[in-house]
Amino acid sequence: MPTIGRRTAQRLALYLVKAPKEEVEALVDAIVKMKQRIRFCSECGALTEDEICSICSDPKRDRSVICVVEEPGNVMRIEGTGEYKGLYHVLHGRLSPLDGIGPEDLSLDRLKQRIEELGVSEVIIATNPNVEGEATSNYIAQALKPLGIRITGIATGVPIGSDLDLADEITLARAIKGRGEIK
Amino acid sequence: MPTIGRRTAQRLALYLVKAPKEEVEALVDAIVKMKQRIRFCSECGALTEDEICSICSDPKRDRSVICVVEEPGNVMRIEGTGEYKGLYHVLHGRLSPLDGIGPEDLSLDRLKQRIEELGVSEVIIATNPNVEGEATSNYIAQALKPLGIRITGIATGVPIGSDLDLADEITLARAIKGRGEIK
Repeated sequence: MPTIGRRTAQRLALYLVKAPKEEVEALVDAIVKMKQRIRFCSECGALTEDEICSICSDPKRDRSVICVVEEPGNVMRIEGTGEYKGLYHVLHGRLSPLDGIGPEDLSLDRLKQRIEELGVSEVIIATNPNVEGEATSNYIAQALKPLGIRITGIATGVPIGSDLDLADEITLARAIKGRGEIK
Repeated sequence: MPTIGRRTAQRLALYLVKAPKEEVEALVDAIVKMKQRIRFCSECGALTEDEICSICSDPKRDRSVICVVEEPGNVMRIEGTGEYKGLYHVLHGRLSPLDGIGPEDLSLDRLKQRIEELGVSEVIIATNPNVEGEATSNYIAQALKPLGIRITGIATGVPIGSDLDLADEITLARAIKGRGEIK
């Protein structure tokens, strides 16, 4: 499991051996229930306990814009900012030739279908700003081009609260190239 | 001195006590020479061994654009990207009311003078994307507005090679707000 190495695993196992029987049963129960209840939204692919997630079924969300992310966790991160009021589309992966993940493994047909059904006017591609994420972003942008809608990507640059001296050269180069007017 | 705490200082001092006399003399000599030779460019304020720095005196640099930075070290960082071919202007500080640093402590009059002398058409404000740096950036942008030139700021957002999950909420919010068209 992610972030749990050999020593942490041993520590957790020994904790459970010593823990009261009720606590262990409660943990097992919680895991079983979580596994039974949580599934992927049939609309956007985010995590939900229902057929349709709370975002897709919220009438107050802006249905004219869809934000495309790689994983369900990214939806939670972006929701955490409070900045975004549109819908999401979770790819459940990214293009990765080395791992044998091609365009057919991403839910792109469903994305196109949703864009047309909802009458979406903008797709924000928020894949990770690394090699695989950018390749995925470019691929999706090209695939959606014929639809004639606005296609945007989240800004890359120097993080807020940071220092130019802490930014790596590639990020700094991109921040200069991607500079914008100050009003 | 920055990054050198009490224990590192002790370790360095003990190293010098044990080091051969010649090595210590070479170090002292290097520091004295550096202090004698290195000064601030009378044009841009960057570090130089001459009256005018190698960037200001390079005829191949683009004299129509000036990049404003807080410290001489920032010039080196941006030069390291190889992305920027214009001139610089070093403020030698940032607005910081708590430290008693106001607009009069920054070399803004000299900046305006250079913009007019050189016929500059764009100023890129590359102060640090933190509270003091952004206040400084806003102040300079307002101060330069009457000149009618293009005033830009470096992009803030998720760093390249990074992961959405690693970005803090403020940066992620800004990255969504500052999204741009994908061509």
